[in-house]
Formats: sequence, C-alpha cells, structure tokens
Amino acid sequence: MNLVDEGRKPRRRPRGGEPRSGAPGQNPHLEVPFITRGIPPYDLLGEDALQKIEVTAGRILAEIGMEFREDPEAVRLFREAGAEVTELGRDAWRLKFAPGMIREILKTAPARFTQHARSPARNVEIGGDAVVFAPAYGSPFVMDLDKGRRYGTIEDFRNFVKLAQSSPWLHHSGGTICEPTDIAVNKRHLDMVYSHIRYSDRGFLGSITAPERAEDSIEMCRILFGDGFVDANCVIMGNFNTTSPLVLDGVTTRGIRAYAAANQGSIHLPFLLGGAVSPLTMAGSVAQCLAESMTSCALTQLVRPGAPVVLGSFLSSMSLRSGSPTFGTPEPALGSLVMGQLARRANLPLRCAGNFSTSKLPDAQAMQQSMMSMMSAVQCGANYILHSAGFLDGLLSMSYEKFMMDTDLCGMLHAYLKGISVDDDTLAFDALAEKGPGEHLFSTAHVLRHYQSAYYDSALDDNQPWETWDEQGGIDAATRANTRWKAQLNTYEAPPLDPGIDAALQDFMARRKASMPDAWY
Amino acid sequence: MNLVDEGRKPRRRPRGGEPRSGAPGQNPHLEVPFITRGIPPYDLLGEDALQKIEVTAGRILAEIGMEFREDPEAVRLFREAGAEVTELGRDAWRLKFAPGMIREILKTAPARFTQHARSPARNVEIGGDAVVFAPAYGSPFVMDLDKGRRYGTIEDFRNFVKLAQSSPWLHHSGGTICEPTDIAVNKRHLDMVYSHIRYSDRGFLGSITAPERAEDSIEMCRILFGDGFVDANCVIMGNFNTTSPLVLDGVTTRGIRAYAAANQGSIHLPFLLGGAVSPLTMAGSVAQCLAESMTSCALTQLVRPGAPVVLGSFLSSMSLRSGSPTFGTPEPALGSLVMGQLARRANLPLRCAGNFSTSKLPDAQAMQQSMMSMMSAVQCGANYILHSAGFLDGLLSMSYEKFMMDTDLCGMLHAYLKGISVDDDTLAFDALAEKGPGEHLFSTAHVLRHYQSAYYDSALDDNQPWETWDEQGGIDAATRANTRWKAQLNTYEAPPLDPGIDAALQDFMARRKASMPDAWY
Repeated sequence: MNLVDEGRKPRRRPRGGEPRSGAPGQNPHLEVPFITRGIPPYDLLGEDALQKIEVTAGRILAEIGMEFREDPEAVRLFREAGAEVTELGRDAWRLKFAPGMIREILKTAPARFTQHARSPARNVEIGGDAVVFAPAYGSPFVMDLDKGRRYGTIEDFRNFVKLAQSSPWLHHSGGTICEPTDIAVNKRHLDMVYSHIRYSDRGFLGSITAPERAEDSIEMCRILFGDGFVDANCVIMGNFNTTSPLVLDGVTTRGIRAYAAANQGSIHLPFLLGGAVSPLTMAGSVAQCLAESMTSCALTQLVRPGAPVVLGSFLSSMSLRSGSPTFGTPEPALGSLVMGQLARRANLPLRCAGNFSTSKLPDAQAMQQSMMSMMSAVQCGANYILHSAGFLDGLLSMSYEKFMMDTDLCGMLHAYLKGISVDDDTLAFDALAEKGPGEHLFSTAHVLRHYQSAYYDSALDDNQPWETWDEQGGIDAATRANTRWKAQLNTYEAPPLDPGIDAALQDFMARRKASMPDAWY
Repeated sequence: MNLVDEGRKPRRRPRGGEPRSGAPGQNPHLEVPFITRGIPPYDLLGEDALQKIEVTAGRILAEIGMEFREDPEAVRLFREAGAEVTELGRDAWRLKFAPGMIREILKTAPARFTQHARSPARNVEIGGDAVVFAPAYGSPFVMDLDKGRRYGTIEDFRNFVKLAQSSPWLHHSGGTICEPTDIAVNKRHLDMVYSHIRYSDRGFLGSITAPERAEDSIEMCRILFGDGFVDANCVIMGNFNTTSPLVLDGVTTRGIRAYAAANQGSIHLPFLLGGAVSPLTMAGSVAQCLAESMTSCALTQLVRPGAPVVLGSFLSSMSLRSGSPTFGTPEPALGSLVMGQLARRANLPLRCAGNFSTSKLPDAQAMQQSMMSMMSAVQCGANYILHSAGFLDGLLSMSYEKFMMDTDLCGMLHAYLKGISVDDDTLAFDALAEKGPGEHLFSTAHVLRHYQSAYYDSALDDNQPWETWDEQGGIDAATRANTRWKAQLNTYEAPPLDPGIDAALQDFMARRKASMPDAWY
C-alpha cells in the first residue's frame, strides 16, 4: 500500500517545508539550520563521581601542571592571571594553576554563541540545547569504491564541500575536510578557506597550522563579512589540539591567541589515545581531557574576555595487542557521555566524538563503529559534532561513500533528537477508538494527518522486500552510496557569491601566494 | 608497540578469567552468565508525559477494551476478576477493564526471576538490573555469503544453536532461531526444543504455535529437570504475540495459560507496525503496547499468581512511500527508551528491541540499523533482549555472517553496560604524575596494571593500519564474518548431556511424532 498515491491530501502540511514526493530521502519537516534538541542528554555518572573527576582535573593542573612551549606571551598572560611559572629551559615553561583558577578565568566565556554564515539563514548556534553537525576533518587520504585510496587533492576538497552543502543534514561546512596535498603546505589554507566560502554558504573552520595562516583565514572573513562585523561577531572558528599529555605548544597557543584577539571562536581538543597519551582507564582520560581543554580554553579569555570558546573531547582507545588506535569502541563512548556532563557543569559548549571508525571500507564495521561513537555524541549533549560525515580508516581517509551513509544517518539523528511528543494528538486514543480491536489503522484520520512526518525517510537504506531488492540487482549499501555521491555532485549548484567579494578574495589569495615560496612541510 | 610481547607481567590479573593470548576477541574479564548493568537507563520522558501515556493505556483498556477469541476459559478468568465482558458472536468477546484493574492483577508477578538452565552456571536472571542476550527468533529463511537466501532447515537451526553456544556474549539459546522448514509444522517444535537441550546448556524458549506444542515443550523440560523442579522453578519460557490492535486470539491465550499453569515464564509482545496496527505516532504506539502487553501478562496471574512474566515491546516503523515495514529506524528507538521507563514503573521485567535491520546483506545498512535499535535496547533497561544476533531482511532471514557481527557487538555491549568505574585507581592521577607533561604513558605501572581489561578486544573488527590490511587482501567485515562462522562451527563441541536423559527425550519425541500425521500448515 502506498499512502502517498492514494490521492488523499493530508489535512495539515508538515512544518518546515513541502510534502514528500515519490523520491526517497525527503524529510522537509526535519530541515533546520541547526538542531534544537528535544530529548535530554544521557547522564551516566552521579554527583560524587563527577566531583571526583573534577577534583582530579584540578589536582592535575595544580600539582602536575601543563607545559607551554615557544610562546612567552601566553606564559605572560597566565602568570599575570596568577599561574605559578617554572622555566624549564629554552622556550619551555611548566605552569601550575591553583584550584579554581582556570574555572574563574572561564567565567567570561559565553555558554552559547552564534557562528554567522554568509547566508544568515545558515547561522548556527553553538552551546546549550543546540546541535551542529560538520564533516570529518584532517584526513590526508580520500577513498571511493572506484579509485580506492589515494592522497586528497583540492578537487576532492571541493567535492566534499559541495557534497556537504548539498546535504540538509549537515549544518556547517567544517574545515580541513581532507588535506589538499597537491597544494603547498604553506598555501593550501587559502584554497581551503576560499572553497568553503565559494562552494558553501554555511559556517566553516579556518587554519590553525601556523599563526599567520590563522590570520589569513580571519582576514578572508573580513573581506567576506567586513571588518566591523567580524570584530563584533563570530564568523570563523579554529580547531586546536593540545599536545597530550599536558603540553600546549607555541604554534597552537599563538593560533589560539590570533582567533581570540579577533573575537573569533576556537575549539580546544585533547586527542587522547588511551594508554599512549592518557590513562587507559576512562575516568582518568576524562579528567585529563577536562584539565587540558579548560586550560587551553582559558587562554582565550585572557586575550579577549568573552571570545567564543568550545570545550573539546576526542577520546579513543587502543588495540592492546597491536598498539593501533581504535575508534568507535564502547569505552570512549562512555567517556563521551561523561564529558557531556562535565561540559554542562562547566557551562561551556562542547565538541565531542563523531562518526568514528577504523574500517578501511564503507562496510558493516564502518557503520557499527560509527554508530557507537555518534550515538554517544548526540546523547552526551555535544553542541558541535565535527567528524559527522566521511570518517574512515582511523581518520586517515575521507570516504565518498561513507560520507553519504553518514549524512543520511545525520538525517536520522534529526528525527532522534526531536524526541517524542506526548499530547492528545500523538497519544492517538481516537485513532484506536475509531476502528477498534482487530482493525488496521491505515485509513484513520490520524494516519492521514501524520503520514508525511511520522518517520524519517532514508535516502540510502533499502527497505524493500527481498524479492524486489533482488530483482533490482541485489545492491549493497556501499554501492548505493557510490551511485548517490556521483548523482549529488552532478546536480550540485553553487550558492551565489557577490562577484566583487569573489574578486577581492581571489586577489588576496594571489598576493599571499606570491609573497612566499612554496613550502611542502 | 605490543604490550603483551614486552615480557612484562601485569601486576594483577583481570577479574573473571585468564589473561589474553595473542588471538583477537578475548575478553575473559567480561564473561558473565548474564549482565548486571553498571550504567543507569536512559530516561527520555518526564513524569507528566509518562503519566499521560499510562492514563491513555488505561483508557484504551477501559473504554475500547480488548477482543478475546476462541478461549472461553481466559474470558471466564477475566470476568471473575472483574472485567466487563460483551459477547461479540461465536467465540469472540470484547473485554473492558476498569482503570487500575490490570495493574492490580499484576501485583503478584515477580519483578525479577531466574530462568534455570541445565548447567546451573548458565542460569540467567530476568528483571531489575539484569540483561540477557538471546539470538534472533522466527525467520523462515537463512542466508550466508556462499549460498545466498534459502528456507531454513533443522541443520541450519542446529548450526545457529551451536554458534550461539560458542559465543560468550549470548546468555540464552533463544527459541525458533530459524524455522526448520524441512520438518512438519506440527512436529518441528520437538526437534527445536531437543536441539536447544542437546547442543546448548543455556536456557531457551519453547513452542507457542499451539497449546499442545507448548505442553510438549514443557514436558521435555520435565524429562530434563524433573517434575518437581519444573513445578517450582522457571526452566522454559514462551514468547507470545498479541494480535494487534487489541486482540488476543485463543491459540495465544491457551498457550499463555499452559506456561503459567506449569509455573513457567512467558513474554507478552505486541508486534506494533506503526501506521498499520498501531498509531503512526510513538506516544500512541507505546500506550497501546503497554495496554496490550499488560493485559496479556495479567492472564498468567489469574491462572497461577506468581508465574514469571515479561512485558514486551516490539516497535517498528513503516516506509510511508511503499508501506513496507522498516526496522532500526530512529522513532522506534525512542519508543523503546520510553517502554523501559514504563516497565520500571510497572515493576515488571522487559523484553525490548534487538539487532533489527531491513538490509538484505550483512553490510553497512545492516549494522547502522542494528546499532540504532540495539543501543536503545540496552539503554532503555530491557532485561531480555531477543533478536540480539542474526536478524536481517526485516526478520525474514537469519544471516550467518550477521550472527557473528552481532555477537561481537554483544561483547562490546558487555563493556558498555559495565560502565565507568571512578576511583583513585581509575582516575590515574599517579600515572600522569609519574611521567609528567609530554611523556607517553606506555610503560607506566597504571597501563601495565590495566592493559588486559581496559578495552574490549573485537574478534571481528579490523583495526590494523591500512597498509597491513591491504597486504592481507583488503577483506571486508562480511567476508571476515563468513570465515569466522565456519571456523566456529568446526571447533564447536557439544556440552555433555546425561545419556539416560538424552534417550528419554528421544523416546518422547518419537512417541509424539508417531502419534500424529505430518501437518504442513
């Protein structure tokens, strides 16, 4: 039976868009610039356990401290704020922070802020009950079913920006969506930022690999948005990694200072591979994560109080037989749930987890691991979920097919995060009473009223009977995804960009590129 | 680096077994006869919404009522308990239950009980914080990568019982693990029950397709356990479906009465395909589920107060373009979380969800959908999770490869449900202090103490670097699972069974089979 083709019109149109046509994957009622969660986060630990973790994070900062390298200015800022500084030698300092000091500094950080996009309808909020999905970040390789695994290029980069822009289930264009390895290391940030601006109208991340590249990224936003707007609003963010355990190097802190000084956002992410750079036990990893991320976040507030900042958590595990990192495993999923609780207690937005996997193919392992990780991200209350699409191969490869699977999953998560509405209409007593025991509900007024928006309609899953599926060739999910990303690229249309701004951006890039020789490291 | 091969012995052995060897998939510290959950359930709705659902379930039973068919004794029992009975015609009655009546009847049902297995070490508890995983149930077809999809046979049935018995991550042998279609419909229950007894030493489900088959199943348990033991203890359960919406047919109620009269367990499951036999909206489906399941459960207490009973929930959705049932979608996952809350409020054990998928292959779709459903099962606090392994093709096919994927996932869920321990040891302050900033933790005492039990070690996932994986042939997860189920069957050893009991069981089967001609419907 096909409710759509029965010729009856629904009594109400679903909120948020047009009704579904016959093509799969249409869920206009779920399309939003960012998600406002309708379900509570999943709180794993009780008050005592959370306090123990917070106390341990405080002890780490007060008794062990963190090492800062090659940025005397960052050290000066923390010393003036009260840190105990010990010089370790040339360009290295150990800083210790009295209990409560970092939390005190962070009181000026906003609990929630807006990142502006060039299309205002694409602005996203970060913090509170807002959830933002962005593509995976940082893979040197790309892969697809046709050509296998190879180094990423700027063409791949543009393709992924276009695919992301084409998906209603991502809200943000991300950053280093893959490494464009065919462009010099010291210049590729220009092409990356330009591609985000040109091929997407959503918010994005800028460069963090060198302070001058951070400045270039912000400068390109000034061309796009105007100097005054940028000074008053967050239009770009940088995604910074601590050097775990307990180190902040100068490239990182100078980058953080550049974003903060410009009043732009920054994400502060310890990449914790348990057993290598953090304890094997999740309680310890989470305590360390909190200590490192809060300290890195605090630097922004010393540079410019009120600058937008995002607590970060990237917990992974290890194959204890081989020493290989593992992703999408159960223990980090639990750790992420705890990080959500800690972020809410710190009153800071959180970036956490994503669609992680170590699989080398878009296969069953890929989506099993992805789901383990991604469910923890949405359940923990994370606000900005980088790595929401494309992640394979332990973050070494961006997969075209996985990208399509993940974006479809992100759509499902829109339905999941919407939650269950409980009212007289949804309780549907009248629908059951209308027909009574033993009678199907197909033609009840209640079904007709809800059929367009009751269930997420996947663009990728095959829910047909086996016989139909078999007659159509018995296609697996990876092959369907392969067909779909090509079709999506074929129908992509770039959002309009003011030609004057485009020319100014290209001029800036050309001048910056001409100002320095290519560097490949 | 390989911690195992470094020649250092861990200071403590993990609890629960021997340390890991070099082979993958060893997690002795997680092996248990059933899981005792160490994490709280995920509570989705607040008090008001839960009360609205309960009130609606009460109104359904009081104002619409349920239809009973072809079992005057069940009607008599409910009439005597206070139900308002209206005769609808030959062998059909509408029963209405005053608000609170069904809950009152259920007060004698145990909140938690033990199902005894023939090996006492395999006894499982059902209810409270106990979680039991059992294989999928009821598929007419089986499939594997070599031979594709075909009707299930008794050989397939035995194979799956053996594979389940071989997995430490299942706790129960299940029931109709696939339909043995090469045996007459009226006799196959004998071979199924015998196979569970012969090839597994875990608990299992008996037949429910006819009251006399239920009696046969219980009689075989009397041969195995002794009459007195069976009368005093739960050794078998029946899994009963209501005929939604709001009907209980006589085959079902007579089967329920047979299990209850023998003091055996029963599960009461509305199979709710939203939009067809229940409202499209989850709030309504959940209210109906509660009403139907509680009424079905209540019958047991009228037959024998104190008989073990399990509330059931099987929520599915529908492709609203084709009318096909869909599984592993987000809306039923939310509904399952709510069913967990309602079961706790009713103080009854819960069967809920499982590794559901509509995929026709053990591919990315299969595990994405499975995870969506299975995470809701373990997060909602379900106690008995049928369909934990093998489910594909919308329950029409039992997949050998998916079975291996799912059992490995069940292992992961042992780690997940164990939760995070937060104490001085796991907070690991000393481990971080031992090395200080910038130093890897590989050789810390803390890592050496925890490396065998910190992370679940998958038997199936490939976490190697891409180059190693590629050199080894670039195998996908489905192919690895294919290799693994064959290896597992090759090394299977049947648990010993007393020859006298075996002979008595075979004699009983032979007599029962000789007593009636084959029937194929």
